[in-house]
Parts: sequence; structure tokens; C-alpha cells
Amino acid sequence: MGKLLSGKEVSLNLINKLKKNILKFKCEGITPAAAFIRIGSQRDDVTYQNSILRVCNNVGVITILHELEDNVTTDALIELITKLNEDSSIHGIMIFRPLPDDIDEELINNTISPEKDVEGMNSINLAKVFAGNYEGFAPCTATAVMEILDYYKISLKGKHAVILGRSMVVGKPLSMMLLKKDETVTLCHSKTERIDEISRTADVLVAAMGRANAVGVDYIKPGAIVIDVGINVDQNGKIHGDVNFDEVVNLASMITPVPGGVGSVTTAILIKNIVKAARNFECNKPTAKVCELI
Amino acid sequence: MGKLLSGKEVSLNLINKLKKNILKFKCEGITPAAAFIRIGSQRDDVTYQNSILRVCNNVGVITILHELEDNVTTDALIELITKLNEDSSIHGIMIFRPLPDDIDEELINNTISPEKDVEGMNSINLAKVFAGNYEGFAPCTATAVMEILDYYKISLKGKHAVILGRSMVVGKPLSMMLLKKDETVTLCHSKTERIDEISRTADVLVAAMGRANAVGVDYIKPGAIVIDVGINVDQNGKIHGDVNFDEVVNLASMITPVPGGVGSVTTAILIKNIVKAARNFECNKPTAKVCELI
Repeated sequence: MGKLLSGKEVSLNLINKLKKNILKFKCEGITPAAAFIRIGSQRDDVTYQNSILRVCNNVGVITILHELEDNVTTDALIELITKLNEDSSIHGIMIFRPLPDDIDEELINNTISPEKDVEGMNSINLAKVFAGNYEGFAPCTATAVMEILDYYKISLKGKHAVILGRSMVVGKPLSMMLLKKDETVTLCHSKTERIDEISRTADVLVAAMGRANAVGVDYIKPGAIVIDVGINVDQNGKIHGDVNFDEVVNLASMITPVPGGVGSVTTAILIKNIVKAARNFECNKPTAKVCELI
Repeated sequence: MGKLLSGKEVSLNLINKLKKNILKFKCEGITPAAAFIRIGSQRDDVTYQNSILRVCNNVGVITILHELEDNVTTDALIELITKLNEDSSIHGIMIFRPLPDDIDEELINNTISPEKDVEGMNSINLAKVFAGNYEGFAPCTATAVMEILDYYKISLKGKHAVILGRSMVVGKPLSMMLLKKDETVTLCHSKTERIDEISRTADVLVAAMGRANAVGVDYIKPGAIVIDVGINVDQNGKIHGDVNFDEVVNLASMITPVPGGVGSVTTAILIKNIVKAARNFECNKPTAKVCELI
């Protein structure tokens, strides 16, 4: 049976490190703080928001929640973000997605100051990810995958990673991050022919297509490392990954479970980004002492 | 023997279309104009510059050349670019590369106004390429490859493209452009293991690693389409592609020659971008009539 790559363990380890950083910051009189914007009251958004806010509060990150009506305009949203950009007590800005259809998402992403863009959605930050430059912020879920590989010391220089799914929050940025680690990277998607055959050439297979249990044994080379990014909720509220875990676990050498895998790490990465934003901001002040992250 | 994909033919066709556009623009009193910045007097830069300026003049694009000393500072370069950004008679800005080592290239790229960034090097434009949005400008050589595929009506939805080389001017942007066309894309590089084996799975193989004649028969699946981006000059001044043409031509179904392939199209793409920049600029004026490119 493949070794379980526990996202919970990775997250716990990271959160503990971040707590130490935050404590060090507090001794210098600095408290990392982030603004969260939620539009409407969709149950999923509220659940997710509560979970993030709880973790932030536990580790000592100040959270300020802005709840907007469903019918908020792009202009009103821009006005709020501009105020938050100018507010020196706020280090990071996050917006719950998807945004309503009539909001200009690209404009919104580019309105958030790159220095406060802890979700890694601004063009300046995306271009950095594209260029393999880690000074900015990268999308949290893609970063969570890299955090798991790093934690378990999985180095695959020269090996072949196949990513199923080409989204701007997982597939595309992750392809650039794996490339930066000298992996050979293939991006597959819904139009890919012989997707199972291509998947079987993977030393690392990342499933991020958003289809419950779609990846079965036909997709797996014996001994492959399988990372499951999928979070699919069925009619009964049960969560399934994109990988058929029971089928695949005996073929893979390592595998992330769902739940308890990549999803568990994503919030910790968001907090890591808020702490990094706070550090960057304070380090630009001549009086700052806290520049090293632990 | 594989069919020759003539870059010269693609370029001629595109240049002819652009000439019609430029003529239409002139009838409205608009002449596309671009500023070219060359630092130092390296022979390759001067040769390339002369070739570009000649084509621009032939098609009716105004060119203004700025020749700077080898020891120009980043600050001085920024000052010049800022002036060009503000100059409403200039639609596009191009800088001959590579820049001297002590110039901050990322800062320079992001100083060029995205609207005048006809080389597609500004973060705003790169992020658009990453996102599969073609409203901005994409790097010219990667676009030249797409232009050749389009011209010869090579549609490979769902098929497998393998790109050898991960640069920011070819490999990475091209991977995103092919992905946008629903191809499955693999990015290989100098650290890739079993690179010949992976290349042999390609329906389209793009060689862009910059090593003369490195791609031989071992890399080719019979019937594959082979696009050679390499331009390698040997001691005798002879130009070689990255593909060993004589070895590969009988296995490939289609192949671009070197010279006379991708390189021939790159300058035409640059001019297309200058014309597009001029169109975009003039279309923002309330009196403008010329908004359609032919």
C-alpha cells in the first residue's frame, strides 16, 4: 500500500512555524492583519470563511471581514479595495470566489496591490510565477502541493510530472513551479486524447480536474506519486477527491488522501502569505527589526 | 519526405496583409510608429536592428532609433522609456536584447507601458498569455510558431505537443498558447530524463533549446510535425537549427527549415504588434475610424 502523504501533518508543521514567526513579530509590536471580502451569503463561502478566520485567530493573525451584498458593483468593490490598499494596518487582502458574473474579475485582481495580494491573483504576481520568481505571491492551492512535496523531501529533478487540469489556480501555476524544480511537466485537460496513457508515464501525477473519483488504476504507473487536489462534494455532503483512492492506493508509492490532503494545507499557505506580506511591509520601514522568517 | 513549412511564405502573406492595414491607417492620417533602443554596438544587434528597420520602412512603419552607450544605467534607460511612454506619436517600444548584466531587466520590462510593449515582455502582458487572454501582446517568437501552425491550418486539438526548452520568450509562452488551442503540452529542458523517449510521443515537436542539430531521428515519431526555433551560428557564419534537418526530414510529416522557418516570421509578428498597438491607441480616440484589422 502506498505511503499516505498527510496534508494535516504538513499543515500542523507549517502552522507551528508560523506561530513562532507571529510571536516574534508581536514582540516587535507588529501583528499581521488581513482583510477578507465576501460577496453574498452562499453557504460554501461562509463555511470556508469561518474556517479560515478561525485558523487566523488561533495563530494570532488579525482578521477584518467585509460582507458585501450580492449586487455589489465592480466600482464599489474597487473603491473598497483601494481603501484597503492604502490602509497601512492591513497586510493582506483576500476575496472569496467565485465572484458574481457581472464583476470584472481581472480588473479586481489587478486592483489589489501586488504587495497585499496574498492569493497570488494579480498580474504582477502571476507573471512572477510564470517567470519562476518566488519573490511575490503564488496561488495558494498550487503552493500547497509544492509544500507537501517539500515536506516529504520528494525531489524529482528530471522526472516526469503530469498535471490533470489547466486552471489558473492549480494546473498552470503548478506547472511552472514544478518546472522551476527541474521536473519535466505535461499539462492535460478535458480535451486531451489518451489521457490515461499519458498519465501512466507520470512519476508524479497531480489530479486537479474537479471530477470525483475520475482517476483510476488505468492512470497510474506502478510506484507513481499521486497528489489529489480534487474536493468534490456529493449529494450526501461527503467529500471525494479526483482520484479513486481505494483503486489507486495499492499501485502508488505515495498518495495524498481526501480529505486530509492538499486542502488541509491551503489555508496554512494563505496564512504564510499574510505573514510574508506583513514581513515585507515592515521590512521596508527603517526602524524594522523583524526581517527573517523562521 | 516531410512537407516544408515555409516561414518565408507565412511572413510574406502576413506582411502583405499588414501593408493593406497600414495603407488604410494612412488614409485616416495615422502612421504606425515604433521606437527601437539599442545598447552598445554588438555586431549581432546591429545586423538584427538593420534588418528590422528595413522591413518596417518597407511596409510604412516609422522607426525611431535610440542608440545608447554600453554603460547606460537602469535609471537613464527608465527615463528614456518614460518619455517614450508619454510620447503620443510612438505606438510601440522595442529593446534589443540581451541587456547588459547590470541593467534590471524585470524593472525595465515593467516600465514599458503594457500598451506599447510590442515584444510582450511586461508582466501585465505575460500574465495575459499565462491566462490565455490574447488582448495584450505575446512574445514574438512564440507567436511566430502559432502563426505558422495557423497559416498551414494545422489544428491539433487534443493532440500532444512537446516543447524542448523552457525560456520566457519561447518555451513557456508557447506552452500556454498551444494549451489554449486545446493541445496537451509537455515542457522538456536540459534536466529532462529520457528526453528522446518523451519527444517520440509528440504529434508536434517544437525544438527551442538553442543547441545546433541536437534533435535527431531518435526524437521523432514517424509522421510528427517538427517546428525548429533554433538559430545557431557556427564558426563559419553558417546558420543551423536545433533539428538535424537531413536526418529528420524523411520521418516528419511536416517540418520548418532553418533558415527560412520560424525566424523569418518573427519580424513580421513584431510589425503586426506595432500595427495592433497603433490601432488600439487610435481606437481610444473619439474621432477614430480605423478599428478593424484586415
